[in-house]
Amino acid sequence: MMDNHVRIFDTTLRDGEQSPGASMTSAEKLEVARALARLGVDIIEAGFPAASPDDLEAVRRIAIEVGNPFGVESTPGQARRPVICGLARANKSDIDRAWEAVRPAARPRIHTFLATSPIHMKHKLKMDPEQVVDRVAEMVAYARSLCEDVEFSPEDAGRSDPEFLYVVLEQAIRAGATTLNIPDTVGYTTPDEYGALIAGILRHVPGIENVVVSTHCHDDLGLATANTLAGVRNGARQVEVTVNGIGERAGNTSLEEVVMALHTRRPVFGLTTGIDTTQITRVSKLVSNYTSMVVPPNKAVVGANAFAHEAGIHQDGMLKHHQTYEIMRPETVGAQQTRLVLGKHSGRHALKVRLQELGYALSDADLDKAFERFKGLADKKKIITDADLEALISDEIYQPHEYFALDGMQVACGTMGLPTATVRLFGPDGREHIFAAIGTGPVDATFKAIDAVVQAPNTLLEYSVHAVTEGIDAIGEVTVRIQSHAVAPTMNAQNETERARTFGGYGADTDIIVASAKAYLSALNKLLVTTGQYGPAETAATTTAPLRPANGNH
Amino acid sequence: MMDNHVRIFDTTLRDGEQSPGASMTSAEKLEVARALARLGVDIIEAGFPAASPDDLEAVRRIAIEVGNPFGVESTPGQARRPVICGLARANKSDIDRAWEAVRPAARPRIHTFLATSPIHMKHKLKMDPEQVVDRVAEMVAYARSLCEDVEFSPEDAGRSDPEFLYVVLEQAIRAGATTLNIPDTVGYTTPDEYGALIAGILRHVPGIENVVVSTHCHDDLGLATANTLAGVRNGARQVEVTVNGIGERAGNTSLEEVVMALHTRRPVFGLTTGIDTTQITRVSKLVSNYTSMVVPPNKAVVGANAFAHEAGIHQDGMLKHHQTYEIMRPETVGAQQTRLVLGKHSGRHALKVRLQELGYALSDADLDKAFERFKGLADKKKIITDADLEALISDEIYQPHEYFALDGMQVACGTMGLPTATVRLFGPDGREHIFAAIGTGPVDATFKAIDAVVQAPNTLLEYSVHAVTEGIDAIGEVTVRIQSHAVAPTMNAQNETERARTFGGYGADTDIIVASAKAYLSALNKLLVTTGQYGPAETAATTTAPLRPANGNH
Repeated sequence: MMDNHVRIFDTTLRDGEQSPGASMTSAEKLEVARALARLGVDIIEAGFPAASPDDLEAVRRIAIEVGNPFGVESTPGQARRPVICGLARANKSDIDRAWEAVRPAARPRIHTFLATSPIHMKHKLKMDPEQVVDRVAEMVAYARSLCEDVEFSPEDAGRSDPEFLYVVLEQAIRAGATTLNIPDTVGYTTPDEYGALIAGILRHVPGIENVVVSTHCHDDLGLATANTLAGVRNGARQVEVTVNGIGERAGNTSLEEVVMALHTRRPVFGLTTGIDTTQITRVSKLVSNYTSMVVPPNKAVVGANAFAHEAGIHQDGMLKHHQTYEIMRPETVGAQQTRLVLGKHSGRHALKVRLQELGYALSDADLDKAFERFKGLADKKKIITDADLEALISDEIYQPHEYFALDGMQVACGTMGLPTATVRLFGPDGREHIFAAIGTGPVDATFKAIDAVVQAPNTLLEYSVHAVTEGIDAIGEVTVRIQSHAVAPTMNAQNETERARTFGGYGADTDIIVASAKAYLSALNKLLVTTGQYGPAETAATTTAPLRPANGNH
Repeated sequence: MMDNHVRIFDTTLRDGEQSPGASMTSAEKLEVARALARLGVDIIEAGFPAASPDDLEAVRRIAIEVGNPFGVESTPGQARRPVICGLARANKSDIDRAWEAVRPAARPRIHTFLATSPIHMKHKLKMDPEQVVDRVAEMVAYARSLCEDVEFSPEDAGRSDPEFLYVVLEQAIRAGATTLNIPDTVGYTTPDEYGALIAGILRHVPGIENVVVSTHCHDDLGLATANTLAGVRNGARQVEVTVNGIGERAGNTSLEEVVMALHTRRPVFGLTTGIDTTQITRVSKLVSNYTSMVVPPNKAVVGANAFAHEAGIHQDGMLKHHQTYEIMRPETVGAQQTRLVLGKHSGRHALKVRLQELGYALSDADLDKAFERFKGLADKKKIITDADLEALISDEIYQPHEYFALDGMQVACGTMGLPTATVRLFGPDGREHIFAAIGTGPVDATFKAIDAVVQAPNTLLEYSVHAVTEGIDAIGEVTVRIQSHAVAPTMNAQNETERARTFGGYGADTDIIVASAKAYLSALNKLLVTTGQYGPAETAATTTAPLRPANGNH
C-alpha cells in the first residue's frame, strides 16, 4: 500500500459541518459534494447517517447523485466516482444506517470509530480496554459483512497508549478493516510526536502493510497541517481534511494547505494527489458561503491576501521575477477570477453556459428563477461577475423549505429618527402578514418585525455582512447564526446529549437590509424544519409588535 | 545564550501592519503597543521608521510612552519595559532614522536586514554575494556604533545557500550583531527543513553561542507555527510573531499559537515565555478591530469557536471531565468574558474604573467623550458588555484627524422604492454640507452622498459588518477598505516602488448604515491625511449628486 499517491479524504460534510452554526441544507450538501468530485477528492465523508433521518437522506442522495456513474445527474467526463463514506459509532444500529445511506454509491465505505485513550475510555465510554478491543473486532467485522471498504478510527489516538493502539489496530485489520485512521482528536500532538505515532504503527502492527493508514488532525495549537504532513512523510497514504479547515473548535486540517504543500514542495515529499488545484478557490468560496464560516484575508492559499502582492502593489520587478516573493502562482489555485462576464444584454443562454462553466447543473425551473434574478440584478449593476452569479445562485436556489417568504419590506433609519422597518411575509398558511417594528437600528427593527410574525424564539449569535465584489454597488452577502430556544435531542459523532441547536442563514441583495431579512428568514426556516416548532401569527391582537401599520396583517 | 526562555518578538506593528489595508493610525498603534506591553512581549517591533515621517514619529511615540519607565503614560507595576525595535534596510539613512525613532526607549534595538538568497541578490538587490557580505559587515557595525542592541536578518534565509548564510552571519556577529534572525520570507520551508537550518547555523557559525538566534516564519503553506516550534526545538530563543498571525500574503506566525503550544506542551518543549496568557483574547480583538483583519471562528486559540463546546453544547459529562475534548481552558487565554458590566445607571466613575480594568488610559477629555457615547448607548441597549465598550472606544477615541465629520443622516430603503440617503457633514472649511443620493442599496446611496461632498476618488475593495455581541440590538462594527486612485510614492520593507495605497476604516453604531458612513469617512480621512489630496464640495452647482434636498448644502 506504500505507493506515492496520497488519498484525499474530505470530511467537510461531516466533521466540518459539525462546527457550531455551519449546518447546511441537503441541497447545499449535494452541491458541495459535486464540487468536491470536480476537485478530484478520492473519498467524500458525506455525513453521519445515524444523527437523524435528514442526515441519512442527505448522505443517500450524495451516494446516488455524486457517488454513482448512473446517478440522476452524472457529470460527463468523470468516469471514476469518489468513494462515498458514512460515519458510524461502533454499534450495529449506526452501522446499519451508514450502510443504508452509502450503498447506492458505486464505491461505498463505512467508517466506524471507538475511543482508545484512557480519558475517553474511562469518562465517556465507561469501558475497560479489553471491552474496547472486543467491540472493535466485533463491529469492524459486522461492517465488513455489509461493505467491502471499511475504515476504523481509534478516537483520541493522539492521547492513547501506543502499545494498546497496536493491539486495537491489529484486531481491526483481522476483522476486515481496509483503512486505519489515526485521529489527533483534540489537536494535542506536535509534528514530531504525530509522525512518530504513524511510524510506530507501520512498524509494529501485524498486517498493516495490507491497509491504508490515514491522518486526521485538529488545529487547536495551529499544527494540523504540519502534523498531517509528518504523517504522510512517515507512511500515511490518506489524509482527512476539510475545505478551509472548518470543523469543531479550531477546525480540522485544511485541504488546500496540505494539497498545496505537497504540490509546491513535490521534490521534498515525492507524493502526488488527484486534486485539480485550479478548483481550490471556487470550492473554498462555496463552502464559506454555505457554512457561514468566513475565510480571513490572511488564510494560507485561499485568503483574499494570499496573493495580494499581485493585485495591490504595482511592482515591475515583482511581475518580472514573481518568484522573489511568490512560491505558487494564483492561477494554480484558480484565484485569477474572470471579472467581467455578463451584462444586462446577456440572454438566458449566455447565463446557462456561464453557470455550466462554473459547475452548476440547474434544472430548467431553477434556471428560470436564476435568470429572473439575473435580469433584476443587471438593471442595478453594470458588471456582473462570477462572484455575483455565485451569490445569486446561493441565495435563490439553495435555500431551505420556505415556511415564511419575504414578499416586500421598507425601512427608514439614520441618526435623525427611530429606525423603523415594515415587512410583508407570506406564511405557511398561504396568507400575507405585514408588521412594522422599531429597533436600535434597521436590522434590529427588521428582525423584530419578522419575529412578530414567525414567533420562533431564538438568540442571534452572529451577524456579518460582506460585499461579494469590489465596489459598493456589489451584492452584499449576509450570514447570520441563531440559536433556538427549543432544545432538541440530537446526536453527533462525539456526544449523545442534548444540545441547543444553532442554524446558519444566508441572504444576498444589493440592499444589505433586504439581504439581512432574507438571511434571518433562511435561518428561521432551517430552525422550523428541524424543530417542527413554529407558530404563524394568525391573530394580530396577540402579537407584540411595537408598532402596527394601518392595514395590520391580513 | 541557550537558556530556557523564549523571547517573544512581536512584529504586529511592522510586518503585520504591512498587510494590504491593515494600516493603523498612530493612536491605534500606541494602544496596540500598550496592550503588547501588558501581554508581556519581550520586544515590540514598532515600525519601519524610514518608510515615512509619520511612521518614524509613530515608532518614536511608542519608544517614549511604552518603551520608557519615565514615559508620559507609564503603566504602574511594569518596571521592566519591552525592548522597542525599529526596522531598517542595510543603509546608513535607514539606520539613522531607525535610531532616531527608538533611542528614547529604555531598551532600544535597531533591526537591519539584507537578502541572501540567489534569487533576491540577483533580481532585487543586483549585488553579488561578496558585496552582500561586505554591506552586512559595514551596516551592522554602523548600527552597533549607535545602539548596543542590534538585530540582523538575512532576508529569504529559507531559500539561501546554508554555507553562504554561515559566512554572512559570522560577519554580522563580528560586526556586533546581538540577535540573528532567520526569516523564511516566502513561507517555503517545511518544519524538518527549517529546524535543520537553525541547527546548522548553531553548529557552524563561529561566535553563535554569544548571540540569540531568532525565527521569522510565514504561513503560505500553513506551516508557520510548526516551523517556528521546530526552530526553538533546535536552539532558537527568540520568535518573531504577530497577533492573529496577520502579515503580508498568508501572514506571519501567530503569537497565540506558538505561546499556547509552548504552554500546553511544556513537558515536551521545556521552554517558558514571559506572556500573560490571560491577555491573549483581548489583544486579539484589539488588533482585529484596528487592522480590519477578521479572525475566523475556527482560528486556533482566539477564534469564536475555539472553545465552542463550552458555550454551545449542553454536556454534563464534558463539564465534569473537560479534558475529554479540551487541551486548554478558555480562561487561560482570557476567553471567558464578563458579560454584564454596566447599565444605564452606571456613572462616569464606574465607566472610568471599568475602562482602566480593560487597560485603557484615557485623558479626561477622551473620558468625557466616551461617557457621552456610553450614555447614548445605554439608552438603546440594556446591557453593556466589555465588547461594547471596546467598540465604543475604538470608534470614538482612536480615529484619524477628521477633515470631514458626520453630523447626521437619514436613509430609506427596502424592496419598495429607490434606496435614498441624505448625509450632513462638517467639512474642513468649517461649514455644513448636505447631500442626498440614490443607490443600489442604503450603503451605496450613503457612500455616494458622502462622495459628492468629499470628492476623493477611490475604489471600495472590501466592506464587512459584524455584530460585536450576541443579540441584534448589539453594536454593529463596520470595516471598509478603500484604494485611492491617487498613487503615492511610498517605501516598505520589501520594495521601494510606487503603490496604490489602501486605507482601512472602522465605525460602530447600533445602526449599521450609520456605522457604515462612519467607517467610510474614517477611511477617507486616513486617505486625505496621507495623500493631502481632498477637495471639499464648495460649489454645490458643480457636484454630481443625483438628488439634492431643498436646503442644498450650505
